[in-house]
Amino acid sequence: MVPVKAAAGGQGTRRATLEDKMKLIDGVDCFIFDCDGVIWRGDSVIEGVPETLDMLRALGKKLVFVTNNSTKSRKGYLGKFTSLGLNINAEEIYSSSYAAAAYLDSIKFDRSKKVYVIGETGILEELDLKGIKYLGGPGDGQKVVNLKPGEYMEHDEDVAAVIVGFDRYINYYKIQYATLCIRENPGCMFIATNRDAVTHLTDAQEWAGNGSMVGAIVGSTKREPHVVGKPSGFMLQNIAEQFNLKPEQICMVGDRLDTDILFGQNGGLTTCLVLSGVTTEEQLLSPSNEVHPDLYMSQLSDLLAAKQTLKVTA
Amino acid sequence: MVPVKAAAGGQGTRRATLEDKMKLIDGVDCFIFDCDGVIWRGDSVIEGVPETLDMLRALGKKLVFVTNNSTKSRKGYLGKFTSLGLNINAEEIYSSSYAAAAYLDSIKFDRSKKVYVIGETGILEELDLKGIKYLGGPGDGQKVVNLKPGEYMEHDEDVAAVIVGFDRYINYYKIQYATLCIRENPGCMFIATNRDAVTHLTDAQEWAGNGSMVGAIVGSTKREPHVVGKPSGFMLQNIAEQFNLKPEQICMVGDRLDTDILFGQNGGLTTCLVLSGVTTEEQLLSPSNEVHPDLYMSQLSDLLAAKQTLKVTA
Repeated sequence: MVPVKAAAGGQGTRRATLEDKMKLIDGVDCFIFDCDGVIWRGDSVIEGVPETLDMLRALGKKLVFVTNNSTKSRKGYLGKFTSLGLNINAEEIYSSSYAAAAYLDSIKFDRSKKVYVIGETGILEELDLKGIKYLGGPGDGQKVVNLKPGEYMEHDEDVAAVIVGFDRYINYYKIQYATLCIRENPGCMFIATNRDAVTHLTDAQEWAGNGSMVGAIVGSTKREPHVVGKPSGFMLQNIAEQFNLKPEQICMVGDRLDTDILFGQNGGLTTCLVLSGVTTEEQLLSPSNEVHPDLYMSQLSDLLAAKQTLKVTA
Repeated sequence: MVPVKAAAGGQGTRRATLEDKMKLIDGVDCFIFDCDGVIWRGDSVIEGVPETLDMLRALGKKLVFVTNNSTKSRKGYLGKFTSLGLNINAEEIYSSSYAAAAYLDSIKFDRSKKVYVIGETGILEELDLKGIKYLGGPGDGQKVVNLKPGEYMEHDEDVAAVIVGFDRYINYYKIQYATLCIRENPGCMFIATNRDAVTHLTDAQEWAGNGSMVGAIVGSTKREPHVVGKPSGFMLQNIAEQFNLKPEQICMVGDRLDTDILFGQNGGLTTCLVLSGVTTEEQLLSPSNEVHPDLYMSQLSDLLAAKQTLKVTA
């Protein structure tokens, strides 16, 4: 048990004191950050984030940035960090596109088989890096099903997994192709990058998320997918294995109770909510809220308050 | 209780004897037929069906043809019957497109409001006949969402119901529009024509059904739809009301245990399975089968055997 958990034990959620922050930083070796609402809001980095990340890195902490966005690969996502002046490595990013490829790799996916992809380029790029063959993706975005009498859609019997990620070019061709693979290829896996109902594709409003694409395939196959992104445990387990860490050495920092904090708690991590995203202090402290992080702060840069003290003790 | 039920009481499913057939015809005033596998297979009428329908009509029976296919209106569906040499009226057809419009009519849908439609022309035609305004449908089939920064999709706040039917032109624009209406318009209804996983769009194979379109909207809204087609009770209730019939005056004839026969049993009807469609006698009599029709026949025209006797007694 890390000190901050012991300190907060039995007292419920509380705003982090200076002592809590110091104990938190001292007690964990790795911080996993949700991005939107923690690192940035839309296209703007949140105040104080670069300095906070620099401080944690200087203290030797491993930093990991997780996102359920599967439209970009890790490398593709790096562009967003760089454009915001954040200096990180692609390997520190855990996108759900990477998680899907890493999952297949972890189960030693037969490289003579193929994956059918509903989704965008991120998934394809990550599959390429793992040497996994695929079909579908953006290339099927313009295909139309012509339902003339006797029409029959062929499908590749070597498809042994279907990955479903967010796809703004979802169409009936892709739905039918994925359905045929899952229903007719014996043992074909059904993998979802995530099932988020809505997502912040733009700052202006919420957009239907990958819950829609996954729901379409659940509806025609009556099969439930294996989810690799938040809040499932795969991503976390993969991070812990890669860095050789135990759950108690990791702190999950997020702005959403029902995904980020629950994701951390499911994995046995220390959890820290920041109020710089979608959750308000009122919602957090409401009697109807059932998800309680170990502690919470206004924003990530609140950790900077511990800087001076830590420098002395480090 | 109708005679045929009494005759079969406690004995489980059995192949109809001549006596059963006579009692069935004598005991019910209305026959509801599933179409595919009962009336036709693909584009061919099943042997003896026209004569059987003629016989039942001559005996004064009401005939109703139900289909979960929502792509056509009742009038549109009539063309299929006519092309197969079957002489029926549009009012004898209960398509799920009609059921959706009839449902809104039955709850006195505010005609100053609108419906957003995911689906094909059948639903639009039926809404027109009920004087209900709509938007969406095939007209939104070519719309593309351009997700540039700050992109915001407007939606009509007067949409008070979303109808989701099978739509081979499903796209992200429609998914997002329907999602916005359901999530943001207070009290907006979510109506599904049906949730069939697969459907026989062509004879050659099974195709992803409206379960996919409905699943997409469930996935982004986390709301469950009100289903108006089989196996929900609305269609049956509407038929019974229109013809002023009680359930025990109606026999459901179908080729699928888990939709047709269950639909009939849920409504308290006499049920008759025909083996001219997807269900085999082996499947029906298998110990693992839990759905037992009151009786079964090879095909609908088996009822013709009762013709001579009925003529005498009629």
